[in-house]
Amino acid sequence: MKASIIGTTGYGGVELLRILHQHPEFDIHSIHSTSSEDPIWKEYPHLFPVMNGKLQPIDLDEISAKADVVFLATPSGASSILAEKLMEKDIKIIDLSGDLRLEPDSYEKWYKKRAGDPSIIKQAVYGLSEWNENEIQTARLIANPGCYPTATLLGLGPIVKEGLVDMGSIIVDAKSGVSGAGRGFARTSSYAEANENLRVYKMNEHQHIPEIEKQLQIWNEDTRPISFTTHLLPITRGIMATCYAQLQSELETKNILELYHDTYSGKPFVHILPENHFPAVKEVAASNYCNIGLHADQRTGRITIISVIDNLMKGAAGQAVQNANIMFGMNEDTGLNFVPIYP
Amino acid sequence: MKASIIGTTGYGGVELLRILHQHPEFDIHSIHSTSSEDPIWKEYPHLFPVMNGKLQPIDLDEISAKADVVFLATPSGASSILAEKLMEKDIKIIDLSGDLRLEPDSYEKWYKKRAGDPSIIKQAVYGLSEWNENEIQTARLIANPGCYPTATLLGLGPIVKEGLVDMGSIIVDAKSGVSGAGRGFARTSSYAEANENLRVYKMNEHQHIPEIEKQLQIWNEDTRPISFTTHLLPITRGIMATCYAQLQSELETKNILELYHDTYSGKPFVHILPENHFPAVKEVAASNYCNIGLHADQRTGRITIISVIDNLMKGAAGQAVQNANIMFGMNEDTGLNFVPIYP
Amino acid sequence: MKASIIGTTGYGGVELLRILHQHPEFDIHSIHSTSSEDPIWKEYPHLFPVMNGKLQPIDLDEISAKADVVFLATPSGASSILAEKLMEKDIKIIDLSGDLRLEPDSYEKWYKKRAGDPSIIKQAVYGLSEWNENEIQTARLIANPGCYPTATLLGLGPIVKEGLVDMGSIIVDAKSGVSGAGRGFARTSSYAEANENLRVYKMNEHQHIPEIEKQLQIWNEDTRPISFTTHLLPITRGIMATCYAQLQSELETKNILELYHDTYSGKPFVHILPENHFPAVKEVAASNYCNIGLHADQRTGRITIISVIDNLMKGAAGQAVQNANIMFGMNEDTGLNFVPIYP
Amino acid sequence: MKASIIGTTGYGGVELLRILHQHPEFDIHSIHSTSSEDPIWKEYPHLFPVMNGKLQPIDLDEISAKADVVFLATPSGASSILAEKLMEKDIKIIDLSGDLRLEPDSYEKWYKKRAGDPSIIKQAVYGLSEWNENEIQTARLIANPGCYPTATLLGLGPIVKEGLVDMGSIIVDAKSGVSGAGRGFARTSSYAEANENLRVYKMNEHQHIPEIEKQLQIWNEDTRPISFTTHLLPITRGIMATCYAQLQSELETKNILELYHDTYSGKPFVHILPENHFPAVKEVAASNYCNIGLHADQRTGRITIISVIDNLMKGAAGQAVQNANIMFGMNEDTGLNFVPIYP
Repeated sequence: MKASIIGTTGYGGVELLRILHQHPEFDIHSIHSTSSEDPIWKEYPHLFPVMNGKLQPIDLDEISAKADVVFLATPSGASSILAEKLMEKDIKIIDLSGDLRLEPDSYEKWYKKRAGDPSIIKQAVYGLSEWNENEIQTARLIANPGCYPTATLLGLGPIVKEGLVDMGSIIVDAKSGVSGAGRGFARTSSYAEANENLRVYKMNEHQHIPEIEKQLQIWNEDTRPISFTTHLLPITRGIMATCYAQLQSELETKNILELYHDTYSGKPFVHILPENHFPAVKEVAASNYCNIGLHADQRTGRITIISVIDNLMKGAAGQAVQNANIMFGMNEDTGLNFVPIYP
Repeated sequence: MKASIIGTTGYGGVELLRILHQHPEFDIHSIHSTSSEDPIWKEYPHLFPVMNGKLQPIDLDEISAKADVVFLATPSGASSILAEKLMEKDIKIIDLSGDLRLEPDSYEKWYKKRAGDPSIIKQAVYGLSEWNENEIQTARLIANPGCYPTATLLGLGPIVKEGLVDMGSIIVDAKSGVSGAGRGFARTSSYAEANENLRVYKMNEHQHIPEIEKQLQIWNEDTRPISFTTHLLPITRGIMATCYAQLQSELETKNILELYHDTYSGKPFVHILPENHFPAVKEVAASNYCNIGLHADQRTGRITIISVIDNLMKGAAGQAVQNANIMFGMNEDTGLNFVPIYP
Repeated sequence: MKASIIGTTGYGGVELLRILHQHPEFDIHSIHSTSSEDPIWKEYPHLFPVMNGKLQPIDLDEISAKADVVFLATPSGASSILAEKLMEKDIKIIDLSGDLRLEPDSYEKWYKKRAGDPSIIKQAVYGLSEWNENEIQTARLIANPGCYPTATLLGLGPIVKEGLVDMGSIIVDAKSGVSGAGRGFARTSSYAEANENLRVYKMNEHQHIPEIEKQLQIWNEDTRPISFTTHLLPITRGIMATCYAQLQSELETKNILELYHDTYSGKPFVHILPENHFPAVKEVAASNYCNIGLHADQRTGRITIISVIDNLMKGAAGQAVQNANIMFGMNEDTGLNFVPIYP
Repeated sequence: MKASIIGTTGYGGVELLRILHQHPEFDIHSIHSTSSEDPIWKEYPHLFPVMNGKLQPIDLDEISAKADVVFLATPSGASSILAEKLMEKDIKIIDLSGDLRLEPDSYEKWYKKRAGDPSIIKQAVYGLSEWNENEIQTARLIANPGCYPTATLLGLGPIVKEGLVDMGSIIVDAKSGVSGAGRGFARTSSYAEANENLRVYKMNEHQHIPEIEKQLQIWNEDTRPISFTTHLLPITRGIMATCYAQLQSELETKNILELYHDTYSGKPFVHILPENHFPAVKEVAASNYCNIGLHADQRTGRITIISVIDNLMKGAAGQAVQNANIMFGMNEDTGLNFVPIYP
């Protein structure tokens, strides 16, 4: 199977390269970028020993004529235009941007950008692999989930779907490494100002809020607005979502853990930790894992759920390849069984 | 005025040294430790150019005969024993440990250690400088607040005292740098395992929970148990407390900011940021500041308060000196006007 | 093929686990440690999703009866004793410690420990894979090189062997990440004291000096003592050796680069960067690569060579598996083609 | 005394603000920048509690009419133009850029920029405070030294001046934190690419090379070109210069240490560590110290000197204020006695 990548020079794009280069079934057919036609190693010297390919201009006819699947690792705003054109051709499409995840009006409110063609957006399947496997199998177009929504939704899914918590009480305190902000220049992404620091950004305004609420609503019609705070961590990779909710009844940690085990049984990338164990961000570094630990506190009647992922893997490129695997009928973990890098 | 420090080799102790060495009114009379009798620079080479003093054994008669105030930068369990003996002598005492902050039964439950003499604990004034100034002025014995409680209580104080929030809805998602764990050896404090990581610890079990709840109760008798999660950040210094609570009525951010401005008017170390600004941890590095930003979210009816401190300064040694200043009738900011180190 | 690991709980041991778990030809037969009999994930929670194996006591009879190769990831002093006993049995042995790399008297001088049995040390083949492939193929016992010597020797090898530099002029300024110090507790390895720091250690006394000089002597009999300074970097993984030497004649960078290309032609893990490019440590993270860049300075007549590796991979576990591959007649890169993790 | 700062928004400028705000003799009269007219805290939120001043456009008449000294924290190329104009007015000038440190032809060769007016450059006194105190006292215009030259020259000065080393053998392996690259955007200064990394830059081409060689030549006419390699450390502040040279005769460490003690006797900021002690970068953080340790190696006949500074303090703003103190007849350490921040 042949894969092309558009938007290769961003961090999501280069992580796709890492995965697909080692993938047993997908070959990297071509890599594309608007920014240069250099060999990719000039942009990313760590690829010098690995690959000689040159970045190419974006020619959708050429791409769709030769590749079986195209990954759009392009910024919001660019992806919907590319997706619209590619839907006229014979190729499967996985979009890593936020362009196809929301209803147009919600998109325009939260992204403050013009939404894409509503009919295209309607055709996009939300690629939360563990929950939407059936629709992904037959999809032509995938809206690959955001990094924060992936960690948050995998953490909240079972209790929300089962109606175990007060839907008006959900608070998610989320923390992300700097690579989540992409490769563009920003003062807050500079070493001297991110290092030895922790900062809050987009307070109650993050564009991933409606994406999370949309999926919660699908699971539970009592869904109410959530509080969602995003913090910039002084690490390169990794997200932790610390989720709080009021339990509807007196439940014990071990019973809720059973529900989580049942829900994610057979899912190779979601791991439920034993009671009194909680995942650390580094324990999933460079892997496609989502590790989850939780605790029902008898003092407060509240549950705290800790969910961690590598934002570039399960939060972007890893889940994109997982979805590609599913779309092409392979085992979902094909080429994705990376052991976390530790320490 | 002469100050002695017991437990000088911990991070709280060495930060006391940094402050007192530059303080215009206090002289460092003597430094004490159980661990060595070396010059302090052998333990802390950065002090080689600064001071030649040797660590001395702990002789309470000697100390109280010559010093006006003694700082106990000793671990929990040790402090209460020292404080009990020092109360028989003529010296003011500031204890940085948790030994004197809680009722004995609460202490034994959360610290899982034997509590000190109840009559001594009763005499200790809780040294949250901005709130207890009057009692601190006349105190002989100060229970200096914990790092997390300082950030949390300064952030929550005004809305809790005014009864603006549902007291059953308070959630504090707290994050601390590694120096908060002290200088002892622990796997989680090692560079290779703390770096590029974020981990949760003492889930719903942190010993600072009852300290926070005790003060909340003083402010508001409707206080209920809080959810309090502690995360270990890959930074050396700094704490952020992200606090959530349900507002009792529809309040706007700007009105709540006014309350905070009024409350902390004239307090040199607590700074309320303008609307839409939130403090970052590095913005108070090595200073005695507590910076606070907040936002009332109309979608959820919830307030989010961000409070940051340097855990070794306002969270330990800085507040201890602030309390000493108050006890001796000086301006509370004497010798504490450090501009934050940035970047 | 079946592999056992002794000393699994150190960082070298756990990196062996990561590699061998994903290796197509070696199975992890058993893992051993003196420190516990727990499941390995209790020691290393990131392995919870990956493996359930328990640590076992060290029973050499049992190991040699079932495994084809044993990796000794044990500390200096322990390895030589284990190697001596294992040589009596039918199993191949790869020792990652320094115990078998030096003549006994040199070992005792630099390691300040008792050397192992001289006859065993004599049988050990120095496992610098790119230079000793023939002897490794037929070896029973491998002394796997140290991390600093690997980076340094791969960088200096071609010019030293060809006699292009004044052998009395070699200076190596080496920098290593904290994982190189192992998993034991040390003040200098603690986060709060290693972070935002750079320190020199073992000035002119590092035990890797004689290991480097021994191999230089093999290549060039004019070898003289080198200056070798080791610095502790605030990173987890990675070594850079910045090597300086006086050129014997006026040579241009491009000619020396040709020599390096010729020397390492066909070697899958050593990469010579184009003129004016120099490798950064992160560009080999979690890979088995050694990347080399160099510059002949016309002003000084001196060459500067930059050589980088991941100390846990090419500097320890990666090269150990590379040697195992060679010993068992496989391609040397089998199971080792990891793309570096970037960013 | 009144001080103005031009180029306040760079890291050198903001460090000047920190120092001068706490200085007993200098008041900050005005702060200037081409980039905005905002309050400085909008650019640097950590200054919100400290100062309300607004950035002003650069009006040299206004500045020279009211201020006693002006600090040029402007980039190379801009400073020489400003200095030329300011020399026509009645004000003392301290330039932190490289514009006035070199002969014009040397400047144009290494900086690849047009040099300033040669007559102005000739009037500039090189502000290496410990070595040029007499000329600084009477200077109107100071060329404040670069960060690398300060660390290197303070480390090499005594042995070079005394002629103890082969002047053709000097190698300086220098490492700097990211703040040294300034506040402008650069890929190599981004968190995701600087973190967990070490990279070489400007190999044998750094513009600080001629600055170092110029001063070495003043000390010793046998000076020859030096090898000088610059590495980017994953820390915010700090420089270490590891200096190597061949000793002319068999000297012992303790004798050379005596020379260093004599040379820097009475100098409050240069500290010579005892034998077998070497300075770490963090041990001078946020202070104006230069700490030096050294070792004469009997095996190689070579000396290794370790010199560390905080690049924003002794390497820029701290030394600039030290020079201002000297120019105005104060003690050179006035307002500069900061204890290092540790940990």
